[in-house]
Amino acid sequence: GYSFVAASVRLLDGHQKLNYMQLKLKNVRKVLLVAKPSDRKVPEKARDLVSFLIRNDLHVFIEQPLLDEPDFNLENLKASDDRYKTNLSTYDKGCIEQYAREIDLVVTLGGDGTVLYTSALFQEHVPPVLSVFMGSLGFLTNVHLPEFPSIMTKILQGEGMRVTLRRRLHCSFYPDACCKIKQHKHVAKPTRSGVVLVNGNGGGEVSDDDEGPECSPGKKVLQREVMNELVLDRGPHAGLLMLDLYADGLHLTTIQADGLIIATATGSTAYSLSSGGSLVHPDKASMLITPICAHTLTCRPMILPFTIELKIRVSEGSRISAWASFDGRDTTELKPNDAIRVTASRYPFLSLCRVNPTEDWCRSLISTLHWNEREKQLPFS
Amino acid sequence: GYSFVAASVRLLDGHQKLNYMQLKLKNVRKVLLVAKPSDRKVPEKARDLVSFLIRNDLHVFIEQPLLDEPDFNLENLKASDDRYKTNLSTYDKGCIEQYAREIDLVVTLGGDGTVLYTSALFQEHVPPVLSVFMGSLGFLTNVHLPEFPSIMTKILQGEGMRVTLRRRLHCSFYPDACCKIKQHKHVAKPTRSGVVLVNGNGGGEVSDDDEGPECSPGKKVLQREVMNELVLDRGPHAGLLMLDLYADGLHLTTIQADGLIIATATGSTAYSLSSGGSLVHPDKASMLITPICAHTLTCRPMILPFTIELKIRVSEGSRISAWASFDGRDTTELKPNDAIRVTASRYPFLSLCRVNPTEDWCRSLISTLHWNEREKQLPFS
Amino acid sequence: GYSFVAASVRLLDGHQKLNYMQLKLKNVRKVLLVAKPSDRKVPEKARDLVSFLIRNDLHVFIEQPLLDEPDFNLENLKASDDRYKTNLSTYDKGCIEQYAREIDLVVTLGGDGTVLYTSALFQEHVPPVLSVFMGSLGFLTNVHLPEFPSIMTKILQGEGMRVTLRRRLHCSFYPDACCKIKQHKHVAKPTRSGVVLVNGNGGGEVSDDDEGPECSPGKKVLQREVMNELVLDRGPHAGLLMLDLYADGLHLTTIQADGLIIATATGSTAYSLSSGGSLVHPDKASMLITPICAHTLTCRPMILPFTIELKIRVSEGSRISAWASFDGRDTTELKPNDAIRVTASRYPFLSLCRVNPTEDWCRSLISTLHWNEREKQLPFS
Amino acid sequence: GYSFVAASVRLLDGHQKLNYMQLKLKNVRKVLLVAKPSDRKVPEKARDLVSFLIRNDLHVFIEQPLLDEPDFNLENLKASDDRYKTNLSTYDKGCIEQYAREIDLVVTLGGDGTVLYTSALFQEHVPPVLSVFMGSLGFLTNVHLPEFPSIMTKILQGEGMRVTLRRRLHCSFYPDACCKIKQHKHVAKPTRSGVVLVNGNGGGEVSDDDEGPECSPGKKVLQREVMNELVLDRGPHAGLLMLDLYADGLHLTTIQADGLIIATATGSTAYSLSSGGSLVHPDKASMLITPICAHTLTCRPMILPFTIELKIRVSEGSRISAWASFDGRDTTELKPNDAIRVTASRYPFLSLCRVNPTEDWCRSLISTLHWNEREKQLPFS
Repeated sequence: GYSFVAASVRLLDGHQKLNYMQLKLKNVRKVLLVAKPSDRKVPEKARDLVSFLIRNDLHVFIEQPLLDEPDFNLENLKASDDRYKTNLSTYDKGCIEQYAREIDLVVTLGGDGTVLYTSALFQEHVPPVLSVFMGSLGFLTNVHLPEFPSIMTKILQGEGMRVTLRRRLHCSFYPDACCKIKQHKHVAKPTRSGVVLVNGNGGGEVSDDDEGPECSPGKKVLQREVMNELVLDRGPHAGLLMLDLYADGLHLTTIQADGLIIATATGSTAYSLSSGGSLVHPDKASMLITPICAHTLTCRPMILPFTIELKIRVSEGSRISAWASFDGRDTTELKPNDAIRVTASRYPFLSLCRVNPTEDWCRSLISTLHWNEREKQLPFS
Repeated sequence: GYSFVAASVRLLDGHQKLNYMQLKLKNVRKVLLVAKPSDRKVPEKARDLVSFLIRNDLHVFIEQPLLDEPDFNLENLKASDDRYKTNLSTYDKGCIEQYAREIDLVVTLGGDGTVLYTSALFQEHVPPVLSVFMGSLGFLTNVHLPEFPSIMTKILQGEGMRVTLRRRLHCSFYPDACCKIKQHKHVAKPTRSGVVLVNGNGGGEVSDDDEGPECSPGKKVLQREVMNELVLDRGPHAGLLMLDLYADGLHLTTIQADGLIIATATGSTAYSLSSGGSLVHPDKASMLITPICAHTLTCRPMILPFTIELKIRVSEGSRISAWASFDGRDTTELKPNDAIRVTASRYPFLSLCRVNPTEDWCRSLISTLHWNEREKQLPFS
Repeated sequence: GYSFVAASVRLLDGHQKLNYMQLKLKNVRKVLLVAKPSDRKVPEKARDLVSFLIRNDLHVFIEQPLLDEPDFNLENLKASDDRYKTNLSTYDKGCIEQYAREIDLVVTLGGDGTVLYTSALFQEHVPPVLSVFMGSLGFLTNVHLPEFPSIMTKILQGEGMRVTLRRRLHCSFYPDACCKIKQHKHVAKPTRSGVVLVNGNGGGEVSDDDEGPECSPGKKVLQREVMNELVLDRGPHAGLLMLDLYADGLHLTTIQADGLIIATATGSTAYSLSSGGSLVHPDKASMLITPICAHTLTCRPMILPFTIELKIRVSEGSRISAWASFDGRDTTELKPNDAIRVTASRYPFLSLCRVNPTEDWCRSLISTLHWNEREKQLPFS
Repeated sequence: GYSFVAASVRLLDGHQKLNYMQLKLKNVRKVLLVAKPSDRKVPEKARDLVSFLIRNDLHVFIEQPLLDEPDFNLENLKASDDRYKTNLSTYDKGCIEQYAREIDLVVTLGGDGTVLYTSALFQEHVPPVLSVFMGSLGFLTNVHLPEFPSIMTKILQGEGMRVTLRRRLHCSFYPDACCKIKQHKHVAKPTRSGVVLVNGNGGGEVSDDDEGPECSPGKKVLQREVMNELVLDRGPHAGLLMLDLYADGLHLTTIQADGLIIATATGSTAYSLSSGGSLVHPDKASMLITPICAHTLTCRPMILPFTIELKIRVSEGSRISAWASFDGRDTTELKPNDAIRVTASRYPFLSLCRVNPTEDWCRSLISTLHWNEREKQLPFS
């Protein structure tokens, strides 16, 4: 369990000031470690990390493939301490949603990809996440491996940790939205308590079982929560992609481009930035619409309120399909008239900070983008 | 007086969904007309507009210079209807703040400049504003003059009008912020009721009498609410301008550029756009940091939470002064070590919509920027 | 046959001033018409155009599929005038290079795609080209169909026509450039006389049978002349593309991006512009290197001398292949270590102007890009 | 005296391939040192540099202020070696043009500003320039001070040095171009032999005493050769600047912007880059037109042939003046209807290379702009 603590009076003001929010984790018992053995150094480092957790009497969950790595050396661990036999379990990622609420903390070990994988894993409720990196700092990782023991100790002692509240976007695919996109009815519904209550005052989130276009009942097939972005592009096809863009039922424009990125604030440092989007503070609730190589000079990146309901439909006259991908996964073809609906997710992603959201973010910008660096030159006047 | 009406359940969700907010004006009696006689056609058109208002038994306030225009033809009006003698007054813009709360509605006649002038006029509370244009549609004007009578009639009949809630930024000048910028204490205070309560749940706005850097008590001299942007640039000087940027007391970066724009969402279609900033929906509470011709390739436009406290200080080592202007007015020199503090204003600007915030905005984008337009070409395959 | 005439003394200065060059066509007898029947209106309009040419005793060559179109109505034409039996021939595009030098003039009917198709058709010598459009003006078309008879009459009367000398790029594919790219030896060779002599002073063009990397003799397989651009992108694959860039044997940089565009000045208004490239006067001999969504903020569009020898190699460590396309055609996979070499083509493309290169270009920019257009707004001061 | 040597056959091909040109300096006797004593370390380092030259029996010219610096310690030098009395002279920068052709070599010591100052000094013929830097590499400097003796020794031994041929632009101010800009007559004239013969085949350069608009004879007052750029901006004034742009007498467009940059390829890494211009190889003869914060989204950076005659006139309807500056110097007000004419200069600037133009340029890009650098991140797949 965990609870929010007001670090300052600013917290009271509303969710926009959550950057000063602190999260106090109580009775941390179950920790899930996400680490992909793709990097040769991961098994050995994961072993150190697991050892630290086990020594602190925590119950640790990891994926089977990691356990099987020679460098993880499970037998040796078991021989050294009986707690490895009782407190170390594997988990089945297929049914992780079922016990997501029982996990007290997720620790990721690796780069930004590992954190995105974690977001994909938890499509509904996400436990608080501590992101540890080994090599270089990323946008989504902030704790260097050597710092892990001292930070984890603070957490176990119940110290409040600042968090970056990363809003995710809920994407649902509507095949064959053949007739006109209809103005949507927004009905407030009671939602579950807990972190999902972004606004803190009950209800009102856009329901993700709202119906789509009237003519295609029950046709919604794919749903995904994205932390960085939804991308629609031409995939393997050359040719001109045309996408109709609707905001709250209003036809904004039809975009002719190589593709379109619908990004969160968190995703503003990823693909959207490469396509000319602005940097957006990760604590901001924003929906970035960034075209990829638009065919008109006037089609600029745009930022919409996070609460808007966005629909992107492959134009009836588009000569090619669009290919959607969700944080780089689950690539799906959209034929002309197919649509994707994007709304605020009710399941945000809480990243524990190293310092605070603003300072962590700036450190990432400088380290990863060489943000605003320049060699000093000799002055001349 | 006026009151907000929930147009849909979305309104209940929190202030981010105010785009569906409706404003119902009750007992409209006092209307203030802002029109600058710079355009030759203004006096005649203003006369028509005033006539309509007087015929509807409203009390109208205008500036003296407009009354004096030959084309306004005041004597002729007075002769035609006695109500021009009793219900038409001039106002002194110097003390307009005093009776701002008594004005039920402001009508502007002219272009975007007239609306910005209105924002400058009302540095604290702003009555709801209806913006009428004569020639071409702007970003801040939305009602074409011929539409005015029917829309005004709807307002007088008490119909709910959708509004764009344009957040303003509060800028205060701190000369000689000689010592270090200190982390700021944020103390919630009760605020007055009314439109200023952006979050709807009491208190918490950043107080604009928070103190600045400790070493310069009582030195704050100039304060301005901006609706578009604060610009800091090199003014008449050639040479390299260096600006230190602080967010909530944290040194973000030092920018070497021709200048820096701190814009609102409303200002995202103005100077910020020319400098590479994104288009931001005018209903969004955002603070855009857009550098003008930065000297590093990695210095990109950035968007911060609206609630952040931003300080921009002319670097101690800057060889030249910066020149600040507030919505293009009140140009002020900032010497090295002088600073400007920017926070969310507690006095937003309510624009009555023609349709709704999103539709009005898209119409402006298309009409004014030729947004995303392209000639259709013959296909070839 | 045709000859160049100095319109002004500027011609004497060197090829950079060819924008004032005039081309005088002598004894025009054989005209090749390129028109794709994809647009419904093409056959009928092509028929009108052919009629005009036949009536002027010219020999006309067209592709068989156009002849077969019902709207072309060949039988009817033959019945009306015997010259259709003797002076109208079809051509086999497979062996068009053989009689390219016998064609006095190419007329294209359609959009920019038809002109690019013509460039693809003539991989070596290109006869002078007159580009006729039906619907809207493009970047590569400049004569509106109703203007065609008067302009064609001028040509037949031997009037000098200004031309835009569109330089093309010669691309050759080197599979498995496994070892290091070697500094290239540039050997001047005598070239054929005629339009191909870009520099006018003999020899010196980079030979297109220069060898590639030493370790792969005889491996060059695909060669293409492009008028707009060579594009290297990720094709159907997600993932990070890495491309090593060499100029005259020097490793410039390794680019991580969605793709890379190597464009001519002519291509500067096409894909390169969508990716942030500058507009370049079509008469300029330039090689534009424009990254598509580069992963670093500092990777800007770059312009190199046209005479440089550029090599782009898929990095050994690139996790995915690159896909090359040449003016949007002939998509080819490049595996890691495969390379493409780009040099100045010895076969430029001569477009007959409507007025002159600069005026034709500006007209296209304004019509097609809405270049620098803005609604006039009411002034306010 | 000096002569060009063909380093490879590419030289023969025409001036576009001058990047492989070598310059062999013969009988170097007179060396002019440009160094501004603004940096504290300059006098001492200049002293070392002068010592090296004097010891090699060269005649050295420097400015008086440098001689007067205590750290230069002239008396001490004179005492050590009699050659300081005979071979060290001061020069008067006011009449430097008179003996520019007698100087065999210019050595600059300092940053890019010192090189620009050198360009300003030599408004007509410029001797070959060797640019030495002390601290960090710039765009215009390439030889690190410790490398100077060995490179200077090579020069004195008559080794061929590669050179970057930096084309300059000739700017002339036409006050009150009240009537219409006329199509210009271009008359070829014989020019002096030597480096000025860019094309190598005589004549044809745009004469810089061509007349301007017919109605203002003899009114041309200010003329400047710029190596980086001509800038036209709003200077101290707020408000909308309007500039009419003419290319070879054709009205291209009217630009509404904060300003306009007309840059050379050399200047493409300076102000033009900050405003969104492309990087252009410094050996390319190009004229870059880069708007500063244009008020239309479609106004993109543009590149014109170097040989074009460009005229920029402050529009008759512009509410404010423009302020011109030439490589950051000689700021001049242009009232509405005043114009500046820009043509290719007949006096290029020859920079001796460290390696060759391409390699020197890339090294500057990487060192000064952090061009295309990115921290390697841990891969994740």
